[in-house]
Amino acid sequence: MADKPAIAISIGDPAGIGPEVVTKALATGEVHQLCRPVLIGSAYAIEQAVNLIKAPLTVRKVESADGAATDPKVLDIIDPGNLRNEDIQLGVASAACGKAVSEWIQIAGRLVTEGKAVGSVMASINSDSFRMAGVNAGGGSDEGSYLFLLNGPLRVVHLTDHVPVKEAVGKATRENILKLATILNEAMARWGIPNARIALSGLNPHAHGDEDHDILAPAVEEARKMGINITGPISPDTVFRQCVEGIYDVVIAIFHDQGHVAIKTWRFEGTVSISLGRPQFGTSVAHGTAFDIVGKGIADHTAILNAMKLTATMGSGAGFPKS
Amino acid sequence: MADKPAIAISIGDPAGIGPEVVTKALATGEVHQLCRPVLIGSAYAIEQAVNLIKAPLTVRKVESADGAATDPKVLDIIDPGNLRNEDIQLGVASAACGKAVSEWIQIAGRLVTEGKAVGSVMASINSDSFRMAGVNAGGGSDEGSYLFLLNGPLRVVHLTDHVPVKEAVGKATRENILKLATILNEAMARWGIPNARIALSGLNPHAHGDEDHDILAPAVEEARKMGINITGPISPDTVFRQCVEGIYDVVIAIFHDQGHVAIKTWRFEGTVSISLGRPQFGTSVAHGTAFDIVGKGIADHTAILNAMKLTATMGSGAGFPKS
Repeated sequence: MADKPAIAISIGDPAGIGPEVVTKALATGEVHQLCRPVLIGSAYAIEQAVNLIKAPLTVRKVESADGAATDPKVLDIIDPGNLRNEDIQLGVASAACGKAVSEWIQIAGRLVTEGKAVGSVMASINSDSFRMAGVNAGGGSDEGSYLFLLNGPLRVVHLTDHVPVKEAVGKATRENILKLATILNEAMARWGIPNARIALSGLNPHAHGDEDHDILAPAVEEARKMGINITGPISPDTVFRQCVEGIYDVVIAIFHDQGHVAIKTWRFEGTVSISLGRPQFGTSVAHGTAFDIVGKGIADHTAILNAMKLTATMGSGAGFPKS
Repeated sequence: MADKPAIAISIGDPAGIGPEVVTKALATGEVHQLCRPVLIGSAYAIEQAVNLIKAPLTVRKVESADGAATDPKVLDIIDPGNLRNEDIQLGVASAACGKAVSEWIQIAGRLVTEGKAVGSVMASINSDSFRMAGVNAGGGSDEGSYLFLLNGPLRVVHLTDHVPVKEAVGKATRENILKLATILNEAMARWGIPNARIALSGLNPHAHGDEDHDILAPAVEEARKMGINITGPISPDTVFRQCVEGIYDVVIAIFHDQGHVAIKTWRFEGTVSISLGRPQFGTSVAHGTAFDIVGKGIADHTAILNAMKLTATMGSGAGFPKS
């Protein structure tokens, strides 16, 4: 067991559904088959979640990821003791939670930097708690990183993120496309998907506009000459369905709502985020803390389970998870 | 039986999958429960399709829609005799087929104009055959009509169709939105969905751009004052999923690939088209003649079956079909 890779999971805002979905995902036993999952956060919050979902699991505090998390019936957790139990109020944002959560995320990141874990998983944070704590939420749209959404066979990287549509058109340049295609191709190879089948979505209807012909098509030609297995531009209304059907490994979307409309309409649950272009491998979930349903035991754990599996396999260079 | 509404179905290019999927759809028996389906086209092509799928159906030529199509085991067809059997070559485009098909479509339309049918269904035509015959294919993007795609609970009308993205942004004006909202609201009421719950998709990510605030939001306010039950602008990456979940009856998409990406990624089969804004109620299917699989008996009839049901219920003012 000890030669399985470790993954570092920050449990998210303990006032939200993070601890519940993390516990549900680990209770499936599927994650331990792939890796050693080490939690970072409030052990008390996880104990409460174990009680809520009545899982036959024991919570054990550990000091490090070394040798931890080999028993699927034991949840090993690094708890730095930076949050008092009474500061956790289910469904209520607080500076105390925001500050503690941001430190848990940093610890998870450090485990990856130090080589103790192959990647990190971030359960949902609460932006109000972060703001009250004076913490910057970060997110997927900082310069030099690209929002990569994954849900089963549908995988989309966004050339532009929170950019108005009319500006996004101007950012679809040869340079930007080649840069992203190169970063994506190298990352996929590192994650265990060599010679990844990349599709470039067109910009205009049926990929028949000026930009598609004059900019996107030549960029694809140039990327192919560089040895990247990229196809396109393909009609936006076709390319995401083709990815669902397994014809491509990943689609590059030109703007936010090509990729977001595709993945969020296709399936409601289960979407995982990666910030492509960052040195560490880290995943998070596309949903929020869902304060309205916290403590009820009804939160869906599909996304965090997918994130854990993806981190275990892609973080260790073993490709996409099998299911 | 005779008081059921009639629908007029042109069988599509007989060299393609049209006759096969029309026959498969009628063989389910579901269409006859809602209406009296009268075919227009080559009786020979339909007989061949009946043989191909081994359906226990009889083909009978009729002169008009009056009193026809009351027996689900009999396919009543108006065959104007404008196509010789030997001119039908499966999988091959021809001027003869193109010319005949365009006349069948006109006959179907005339039945609706004359009040003999509540609506028309057009099986897939072949654009090569049309071009060889010198026939204009028409389509959903002519001035004053709007492409309306429907697949189960997901229904989308497009404010702009085959327009480059950067031009589509400029067409999202107050006037254009109000005009479409008014036409859509009146059409829905006529089709049996009074006070339809209409959602307007935003233009930019999370509907948080200048156009969303300055143009779309005020247009929605004004439409509401006119008595239209419209909500928005709603984040494009949320609104189509909300429609799938039944929160809205229909979404207005600002540009082609908001709506097309949503509906084509969500489900591959089954999408029906309506040209909103035309005086007659007519549906068609979003797929083509599929020459590569014609005559094999493997063509999927979901879309044409959905089109027949929609035409029977919406064309007669009875709302959406139950399933």
